[in-house]
Amino acid sequence: MSDRREPIRDIAHFGYAELLTPKPEATESYFTDLLGMEIVRTEGDSIFLRGWGDYAVWTLRVTASDSPGIGRVGWRAYSEDALHRRVAAIEEAGLGIGWDNDNPDRGPTYRFQDPDGHRMEIYYEENKYRAPEGMKSALRNQPMRYSGRGAGVRRSDHVALLAKDVPANRAFAEETLGLQLREQIRFENGEVEIGSWLSSTAMHHEIAYVRDNAGMNGRLHHFSLWVDNREDVLRTADIFRENGIFIEAGPSKHNNSQAFYLYSYEPGGNRVEVYTSGFMVFAPDFEPVIWNEDNRDGGVYWGAKLPESFSTYATPPAPDQAMASGPVVDPH
Amino acid sequence: MSDRREPIRDIAHFGYAELLTPKPEATESYFTDLLGMEIVRTEGDSIFLRGWGDYAVWTLRVTASDSPGIGRVGWRAYSEDALHRRVAAIEEAGLGIGWDNDNPDRGPTYRFQDPDGHRMEIYYEENKYRAPEGMKSALRNQPMRYSGRGAGVRRSDHVALLAKDVPANRAFAEETLGLQLREQIRFENGEVEIGSWLSSTAMHHEIAYVRDNAGMNGRLHHFSLWVDNREDVLRTADIFRENGIFIEAGPSKHNNSQAFYLYSYEPGGNRVEVYTSGFMVFAPDFEPVIWNEDNRDGGVYWGAKLPESFSTYATPPAPDQAMASGPVVDPH
Amino acid sequence: MSDRREPIRDIAHFGYAELLTPKPEATESYFTDLLGMEIVRTEGDSIFLRGWGDYAVWTLRVTASDSPGIGRVGWRAYSEDALHRRVAAIEEAGLGIGWDNDNPDRGPTYRFQDPDGHRMEIYYEENKYRAPEGMKSALRNQPMRYSGRGAGVRRSDHVALLAKDVPANRAFAEETLGLQLREQIRFENGEVEIGSWLSSTAMHHEIAYVRDNAGMNGRLHHFSLWVDNREDVLRTADIFRENGIFIEAGPSKHNNSQAFYLYSYEPGGNRVEVYTSGFMVFAPDFEPVIWNEDNRDGGVYWGAKLPESFSTYATPPAPDQAMASGPVVDPH
Amino acid sequence: MSDRREPIRDIAHFGYAELLTPKPEATESYFTDLLGMEIVRTEGDSIFLRGWGDYAVWTLRVTASDSPGIGRVGWRAYSEDALHRRVAAIEEAGLGIGWDNDNPDRGPTYRFQDPDGHRMEIYYEENKYRAPEGMKSALRNQPMRYSGRGAGVRRSDHVALLAKDVPANRAFAEETLGLQLREQIRFENGEVEIGSWLSSTAMHHEIAYVRDNAGMNGRLHHFSLWVDNREDVLRTADIFRENGIFIEAGPSKHNNSQAFYLYSYEPGGNRVEVYTSGFMVFAPDFEPVIWNEDNRDGGVYWGAKLPESFSTYATPPAPDQAMASGPVVDPH
Repeated sequence: MSDRREPIRDIAHFGYAELLTPKPEATESYFTDLLGMEIVRTEGDSIFLRGWGDYAVWTLRVTASDSPGIGRVGWRAYSEDALHRRVAAIEEAGLGIGWDNDNPDRGPTYRFQDPDGHRMEIYYEENKYRAPEGMKSALRNQPMRYSGRGAGVRRSDHVALLAKDVPANRAFAEETLGLQLREQIRFENGEVEIGSWLSSTAMHHEIAYVRDNAGMNGRLHHFSLWVDNREDVLRTADIFRENGIFIEAGPSKHNNSQAFYLYSYEPGGNRVEVYTSGFMVFAPDFEPVIWNEDNRDGGVYWGAKLPESFSTYATPPAPDQAMASGPVVDPH
Repeated sequence: MSDRREPIRDIAHFGYAELLTPKPEATESYFTDLLGMEIVRTEGDSIFLRGWGDYAVWTLRVTASDSPGIGRVGWRAYSEDALHRRVAAIEEAGLGIGWDNDNPDRGPTYRFQDPDGHRMEIYYEENKYRAPEGMKSALRNQPMRYSGRGAGVRRSDHVALLAKDVPANRAFAEETLGLQLREQIRFENGEVEIGSWLSSTAMHHEIAYVRDNAGMNGRLHHFSLWVDNREDVLRTADIFRENGIFIEAGPSKHNNSQAFYLYSYEPGGNRVEVYTSGFMVFAPDFEPVIWNEDNRDGGVYWGAKLPESFSTYATPPAPDQAMASGPVVDPH
Repeated sequence: MSDRREPIRDIAHFGYAELLTPKPEATESYFTDLLGMEIVRTEGDSIFLRGWGDYAVWTLRVTASDSPGIGRVGWRAYSEDALHRRVAAIEEAGLGIGWDNDNPDRGPTYRFQDPDGHRMEIYYEENKYRAPEGMKSALRNQPMRYSGRGAGVRRSDHVALLAKDVPANRAFAEETLGLQLREQIRFENGEVEIGSWLSSTAMHHEIAYVRDNAGMNGRLHHFSLWVDNREDVLRTADIFRENGIFIEAGPSKHNNSQAFYLYSYEPGGNRVEVYTSGFMVFAPDFEPVIWNEDNRDGGVYWGAKLPESFSTYATPPAPDQAMASGPVVDPH
Repeated sequence: MSDRREPIRDIAHFGYAELLTPKPEATESYFTDLLGMEIVRTEGDSIFLRGWGDYAVWTLRVTASDSPGIGRVGWRAYSEDALHRRVAAIEEAGLGIGWDNDNPDRGPTYRFQDPDGHRMEIYYEENKYRAPEGMKSALRNQPMRYSGRGAGVRRSDHVALLAKDVPANRAFAEETLGLQLREQIRFENGEVEIGSWLSSTAMHHEIAYVRDNAGMNGRLHHFSLWVDNREDVLRTADIFRENGIFIEAGPSKHNNSQAFYLYSYEPGGNRVEVYTSGFMVFAPDFEPVIWNEDNRDGGVYWGAKLPESFSTYATPPAPDQAMASGPVVDPH
């Protein structure tokens, strides 16, 4: 019949991110008081957080550290077999680290790194979140009650990582992890790959790799949280302004992804996006969309072009770079 | 030139309402934790509340009482002279009670009642709200910071009162207070006035008089709070459901007023509306819109007709009427 | 490792529906003038329509007929191999009809029926939509320009079918087609399956089977179209009221699916939903949510319970049933 | 009692604006096809337009001209007496021109100019809009049916004019017309008045005077149209992008007024705002809010600062200024 190779579909979805922060208390307040996340666990220097719509126990880990940046990125495999197939592929790629049996609320977890050196993890088994009394939703299909606190983010959505060599990391995500390519920015007649967006679900992207203009390794561009509608994004901008959080860009609408975005720096210095809408991809033969110098348009469909700092600031910051954050959050 | 009498314009706007509650703690939690209002003062059995957008110090007073219902309704006069003109008119109507110099945050206040016996007050002087440190907004033109807590209502909007004799009370509001008539429901070829909506500003209405089907006096149909958009109304419905608050009707769109509404019973039993949109009236010669049996359509533009209880339940309840409220709020 | 059988993942997504209408002109106007769809092809008694966000050439076919109802339901396979695997399974189930090479804009299409007798089709190859000049979007990743006409639905979303024997049809969808079960209504201690919702993507459901209370076969409960936000649903309700379209229920929020809905009857008599939000399912081991007599709550999270007609009216109507539609659309 | 002079309240509201355009066909298409206004009358070189919520017959006149800019600005007086009081005051100020009995759909109209030379008109009598068959709304209190076409603006909202001498024009608006001052931008320790916002209703402003940095007279900064919610503003941005309309700024939120805005240039070159929200002013003793160099923040609460062109471009353009518009609208 057809000799088109069927895609790998072994990753079920983006599982979690760990953010490092030099200001753990202020970062905690940002995610709980302002964005409305819930702390479900504290362990050593880490707190573990969830949105009200996350089915996993936690999807964000925040760990005290000297510098801001990304700790681990977790991926849930589609099945036990899928997990082992991916582990084998990662080991074959020479990027494996080894098994870890102490990943809270997850079963056996295999640790590895991407070519740029970002630490990643893959697992299949996990505990589902069971809300304690007083946190149960009136809806049987909602893992936790909606609290009405702050932005009230629904769930963790995606990460965007910087990489010295975007093609190598994108190829790893596509071929070794089995993610699907959705959009790219390619300059110079398509020969220079500036950024690539990939996903394992119908959501537009779960990970992006974007060129690290400082030539560093293992850095975070941003971590993104989902809200259900654009009014919630607008409302979040009010909350940020009322609490002295630095807004870098938005609320506005991207051209690639079509999503509605708001970029802020959490008090520890990491860029965090509050995000909604965007197009979904259902076609099994989706053709990645390519943007170039002429049509990239500053990354926006309308609204101001993304600012210079969007291309230069990342965490940890470059040695010559001040943390571009605004004042530490003072949630009164 | 013209002999059309110019309208009285001595009332500047609806000033405040006092709600009586047999469950003061639960009622307080409803207005602060769920609707996001702020307590600015406590005095005896009363708490005084404001929305973040109210310029007055407080616009809602909640007072412990044996039964739910409406305490006073306050009106701000347009000027000192306007105040005295209205007092004279009220006294001439035989409905005056007398001056009160102890209205918190307001200057001299004249007390009176409407023909149905609802207690009302009129004043001109008042303190403007000055937010304390930690409550100031980042916006110079916003009286208080937006907290992002619960529904986050902006301000108190209006009251709807029941009356045994709607025409008499509507005439009092029009002729003695000088409010403008906006819409009416008239049955039986226009001869039976079921309800009338009036205002002193461009907002659709600040007070409504609706027929008391139990033939009682001095009762409250509902008190209404403003949010800035329909998404906030929808979000409030989620918050109510997650906190066991009884939703009587909505979210949906009225035909008269065109407003988007959500009716709940606060734990003390009073009906409270969360409200937005609606048409504004700028025409000085606006022609009141009349609805009748044939076009009233259950009060809605779309969505389910208003339920039976909307015509029968009010506070204090009729002797044979249970408080129709849902469970007491348990804001976890 | 694990012996949990990995799920079948051979269906990529719901592909299209065909609606039958006794009033083809009025039905056309409903979908184009009011809902903002585009006609891309006319053939015999059929018109073929698309939303601006559909990547397929068309996702709705409307065909003149004596009675309203559902024609075919199309499913896109994930690959050529996946197509042939499903065809084999369908033939083994004894429900196959045969290949059809004349499905407009699609490649070889296999025709079959579900146990209840609804006609279905499965295909892999298809033309992607290429917008003609004047219909191109300013966005490279958007198949067609957003016209701003009427509701402006983005894409076709799902179908809900009635079935005499829900378990048999649900089992066919799960086991033969390989869809994932999401939610169910089960009465009488779980022994009577009233309805089941299934999907092949992260979207909550692409098909529902609900018990046919008239004991008929092959009927349609509703066809559903996606808009991007709840304001668009509210706006659509205005458009329907201004154009004499019968609104049966909503705008309001379902409890199962959590989606925001508006049900109308198109002029031909078929129930059509305008739909948004709802929770997405990413967990590969998602546990279907079961609702029963005690918690079903009329199908709503808030707002009026779904009306009686929601359980009794379907197309084609039962012999004793008038088409419950409102006046034929008159888009002035 | 009080010797505080009561304010003049003789203007009921902003009545209409006339825009001049060198591209009348494209301008017409912008207002009708994209913004969804309705043409109610054509006369000579002028078309007369309305939004579906305007109670007046028309609120925007578009007239063919060599250059873009503002024609007349109309004000409705509160009564016949109020009209004559204002005419007397205007004549006393030496800015009167004379009576005009040919203002379509309005009664006797007095023509005058503001100190900067903008042509203005004041009238009391006017025809109310009565929708013809096919244009009537299903709502008794809505002047015209909502068409669902394009942005679907509800009504004309306000004008912003440039002036060489802001204080003189602001003083004229306050003292001669009797508008209330709402906000100001004052630089250099408050001594240089850069802009002033004034209104006669509860709406934040109906007219603004802003310094003409080119030192010209009689120019237009922008004309503004109201939509009911922020989603409609966001949707309008999509419509503009899909139709090649130049977006200068927004969608975003102003700090002064708190309104949500979108500025585009209509094809004739005039800046047009689509606008919603903003705070309302009910206090009769409202204290104008003053912004200065330190807190003005580019005019925004969040989002990109207003661009340079916002301070430099106006219509008619300065001699050395190209019309900054994007391509002429081509509504396919």
